[in-house]
Amino acid sequence: MKALIPYKKKNAKSRLSPALTLKEREEFVELMLRDVISSLQNAGIEKIDILTTPDNGVPEDVEVNVVINKNDLNEAINEYLEYEQEPILIIMADLPLVKSEHIKEILSRPEDVVIIPGKGGGTNIIFTKDPSNFHVKYYGSSFLNHCNIAKGRNCSLHVYDSFLLSTDIDEPHDLVEIMLHGHGYSKKYVMERFDIKTGKARAKISSAGA
Amino acid sequence: MKALIPYKKKNAKSRLSPALTLKEREEFVELMLRDVISSLQNAGIEKIDILTTPDNGVPEDVEVNVVINKNDLNEAINEYLEYEQEPILIIMADLPLVKSEHIKEILSRPEDVVIIPGKGGGTNIIFTKDPSNFHVKYYGSSFLNHCNIAKGRNCSLHVYDSFLLSTDIDEPHDLVEIMLHGHGYSKKYVMERFDIKTGKARAKISSAGA
Repeated sequence: MKALIPYKKKNAKSRLSPALTLKEREEFVELMLRDVISSLQNAGIEKIDILTTPDNGVPEDVEVNVVINKNDLNEAINEYLEYEQEPILIIMADLPLVKSEHIKEILSRPEDVVIIPGKGGGTNIIFTKDPSNFHVKYYGSSFLNHCNIAKGRNCSLHVYDSFLLSTDIDEPHDLVEIMLHGHGYSKKYVMERFDIKTGKARAKISSAGA
Repeated sequence: MKALIPYKKKNAKSRLSPALTLKEREEFVELMLRDVISSLQNAGIEKIDILTTPDNGVPEDVEVNVVINKNDLNEAINEYLEYEQEPILIIMADLPLVKSEHIKEILSRPEDVVIIPGKGGGTNIIFTKDPSNFHVKYYGSSFLNHCNIAKGRNCSLHVYDSFLLSTDIDEPHDLVEIMLHGHGYSKKYVMERFDIKTGKARAKISSAGA
């Protein structure tokens, strides 16, 4: 089995710009990627492919295989899946809350396809045992798309329910979840920069110096 | 064992006001309460106490016990816990995505205390086997408060990881999660009023007529 991580560093995570500068965002996505890779490796996954575009550097010291594809996310992943014979875990690089226990549980599911929803109808992880019998359709309500694709291919399906895996880091308030539930490089990076500011509503972040 | 549901109907869920009128919000919180009660009953919980204030009506046709306390949330729950001898599950009324399977899993945990975090540092469910040896401190980063309280009382602790249980319904975008992952009365109510509008970012809702 293999893991596939789509990755984009250049001008990444623009919705985090109220909290982090461009340079910080590019540093931060690399740290989130490292945390995801660590959890995959700790779960025993040896083959990791990072799917990226020609101008998006993957750090050289990580033990992964880099797959370059200049097409958009859906097209690039679908080209990749078409020729794969072994089970594939497609996991987004902005999921630093993932633990190796999650990965082990997902891989041990008996169903053909496991989908892990993100907030707002997104898809954060897909595990498909027969990748040539699946295709992806990200953006929009991709969770519904992927459930329908699995059904259309007569695949048995499990929806894996995890708060930590539903939390892709897109917006400033998502950084709070790293402070509360995170680990590794990404937690260290956020803790150095922000405090948790709490009121009656959900917790917010503020600059550490403020 | 017993379940305790804090409940407030009057002028409830003001942060949902961009999507629902006052009258609709008051109807909707009652439907969410009914969905929570159904899941508890389907999990085999027979004793359900609803904790509310004198002016907040609980529907008369549900099989629950009503506990009136005019103090604030923390004070009212802590007064309740002080005299309880049997295990208590404290569950918020705005968690319509809860299923009976979640409740069964939580009740079967071997630890003294199980905490289910909400988004942004909140606490959505607490299960304590010895309620007189626990107290609550909601608002702000209550998740950290409750973890610290469990540790301070030398209770073993499990943090239960669930996207569906992390999703308390507070803001309009939370309604999307009911459309995608919900069931029961609350799903019916939201589906009758809204469409899912999807763009590249997370899914949003729009009025069904728009």
